[in-house]
Amino acid sequence: MKSPVTVLGLGAMGTALARAFLAAGHPTTVWNRTPGRSPELDALGAIRATTVADAIAAGPLVVVCLLVDDTVRSTLDGVDLTGRTVVNLTNSTPDQARGTAERAAAAGAQYLDGGIMAVPPMIGTPGAFIFYSGPQDVLEQHRPALEVLARPAYVGTDPGLAALYDIALLSAMYGMFGGAQHALALITSSGNPTEPFTNDFLVPWLTAMLTSLPSMARELDHGPATTADSNLSMQAAAYENLVTTAERQGVDPRLLTPMGELMQRAVDAGHGDGGLSALVGLLRTPAD
Amino acid sequence: MKSPVTVLGLGAMGTALARAFLAAGHPTTVWNRTPGRSPELDALGAIRATTVADAIAAGPLVVVCLLVDDTVRSTLDGVDLTGRTVVNLTNSTPDQARGTAERAAAAGAQYLDGGIMAVPPMIGTPGAFIFYSGPQDVLEQHRPALEVLARPAYVGTDPGLAALYDIALLSAMYGMFGGAQHALALITSSGNPTEPFTNDFLVPWLTAMLTSLPSMARELDHGPATTADSNLSMQAAAYENLVTTAERQGVDPRLLTPMGELMQRAVDAGHGDGGLSALVGLLRTPAD
Ligand SMILES: NC(=O)c1ccc[n+]([C@@H]2O[C@H](COP(=O)([O-])OP(=O)(O)OC[C@H]3O[C@@H](n4cnc5c(N)ncnc54)[C@H](OP(=O)(O)O)[C@@H]3O)[C@@H](O)[C@H]2O)c1
Ligand SMILES: NC(=O)c1ccc[n+]([C@@H]2O[C@H](COP(=O)([O-])OP(=O)(O)OC[C@H]3O[C@@H](n4cnc5c(N)ncnc54)[C@H](OP(=O)(O)O)[C@@H]3O)[C@@H](O)[C@H]2O)c1
Repeated sequence: MKSPVTVLGLGAMGTALARAFLAAGHPTTVWNRTPGRSPELDALGAIRATTVADAIAAGPLVVVCLLVDDTVRSTLDGVDLTGRTVVNLTNSTPDQARGTAERAAAAGAQYLDGGIMAVPPMIGTPGAFIFYSGPQDVLEQHRPALEVLARPAYVGTDPGLAALYDIALLSAMYGMFGGAQHALALITSSGNPTEPFTNDFLVPWLTAMLTSLPSMARELDHGPATTADSNLSMQAAAYENLVTTAERQGVDPRLLTPMGELMQRAVDAGHGDGGLSALVGLLRTPAD
Repeated sequence: MKSPVTVLGLGAMGTALARAFLAAGHPTTVWNRTPGRSPELDALGAIRATTVADAIAAGPLVVVCLLVDDTVRSTLDGVDLTGRTVVNLTNSTPDQARGTAERAAAAGAQYLDGGIMAVPPMIGTPGAFIFYSGPQDVLEQHRPALEVLARPAYVGTDPGLAALYDIALLSAMYGMFGGAQHALALITSSGNPTEPFTNDFLVPWLTAMLTSLPSMARELDHGPATTADSNLSMQAAAYENLVTTAERQGVDPRLLTPMGELMQRAVDAGHGDGGLSALVGLLRTPAD
């Protein structure tokens, strides 16, 4: 008999989490502000609680996946959590995660904060992982149930660390998506369809360029390489062509311009012969 | 006996191109503004020309890889190109490529414009490709030699098209690199090394997220999907946490903020239930 679990929040992600628990045979109690959401869970055996308190009474492990930190606050406000383990998978800042950890402790609960590195269809598949931070023994205690959702990646006792790692990866993802969207806007501006471009060129190209990230990290940790295959002066010169071309094609260059300014600042600061890793330091010493 | 080739420009990229030609057995004449650059080419059999005219006289195929369009202009200015095929692999805007095509024709040459999708160490390896545009028969005529450098990807007769595709991919790459650099700045701000983060989390995560680009393109070409696994309202709410966290960690959020503004504009325009592909349309209708 698998341990009972509770899921608070049946948005796209909470629903995927509940489905994974149900598929693994965990008795799963669910609660959602708007009743009756995700009706497909009923046929899979989900137990619907009418109140948050009822949902929390159903078992020791309470997984929270609501919209934002405010939603978590208002949902758990005044609720007795004695003897419960709260695993908060709602996107939060590190400070918000630390605050929720304190309030959960005050309400009698053990607390883990988590950052889900997956979209809903990836939940329960090998590619998905979840950053966790908080007391490691709490993770170990609930590991069998939590592994049903995704591979746990424990990052430290400070409850804010999972949020920091989560937000670092999301920042990288939105950079990539923003770049891709700009590229797709350029292609549509030429009247061409975007699917062949994406499948034949965009995905293979970004996949190839991803392989240069480890060497950027190596330079950050151990100092710059002696010669750059792609020096920053050359890159900054080519970058002007990116902005000019966007404008000429009627594509708003706003996603591109800050990177160009940063590259120019790096060149002006004497990093023209080096590589892109010099930009990371500039991001930590704002110009204005 | 392989056909003779000429390479103008021995920067990091021109040197890699010359090396590949030499490795494949092409008699290779090279010219560079600063004499004696890349001395390692001498032992590989490179023939050094003292003047641009001498370099061009050495054979029918002239590959140009200089810093920017201005450099190409000043280097080829007044040079007789009769009977030559000029393949310009210098980064250019579409308009610059069209201008170079016209001047090359006026000087008696056939012309192909190209965009190299590789860093120098990738030249001659299976992952590299080069966009070409211009007359297709000219590409076919020189295909055996050009294939030595990278797989040719022909995109059309308009000489500006290779530049457009090149710049689209570079825009996407710089988005990805900018996002990654922001992520690495966040990690260094926590006092942690960046190599384990990059290898264990950043690269696998971006690799997984790349798989969502084809569905964005499908939505652009054929209309939005009916339900979004990750709705824009939720994403815009989480995005605020990205900006707040950057500021709190002392990391300049300038690479992040334009994407957040764009997402908020998409939500305000009624796209909150949809996915990210709505942003592409907004990039083509600037707000200000
Ligand atoms: N979807 C993803 O790709 C993804 C990936 C990783 C992490 N996440 C994170 O997972 C969390 C949930 O995302 P989602 O995709 O499931 O979002 P969603 O589909 O928009 O669902 C939002 C959930 O929050 C609830 N909610 C909103 N306001 C509330 C309030 N004032 N009081 C109580 N409940 C409230 C909604 O309840 P109602 O049904 O009553 O509106 C719903 O259950 C977010 O923090 C998100 O950042 C999502
Ligand atoms: N490296 C890459 O990763 C990469 C990738 C794709 C495309 N590209 C493109 O390839 C081209 C060359 O890049 P690179 O990496 O080889 O750059 P680089 O290492 O900085 O070399 C620049 C080249 O341009 C020459 N040059 C500069 N100003 C000149 C002038 N006024 N007159 C004549 N020659 C001049 C330099 O000659 P001197 O030796 O005399 O200075 C050198 O040969 C650029 O358009 C770049 O965008 C590069």
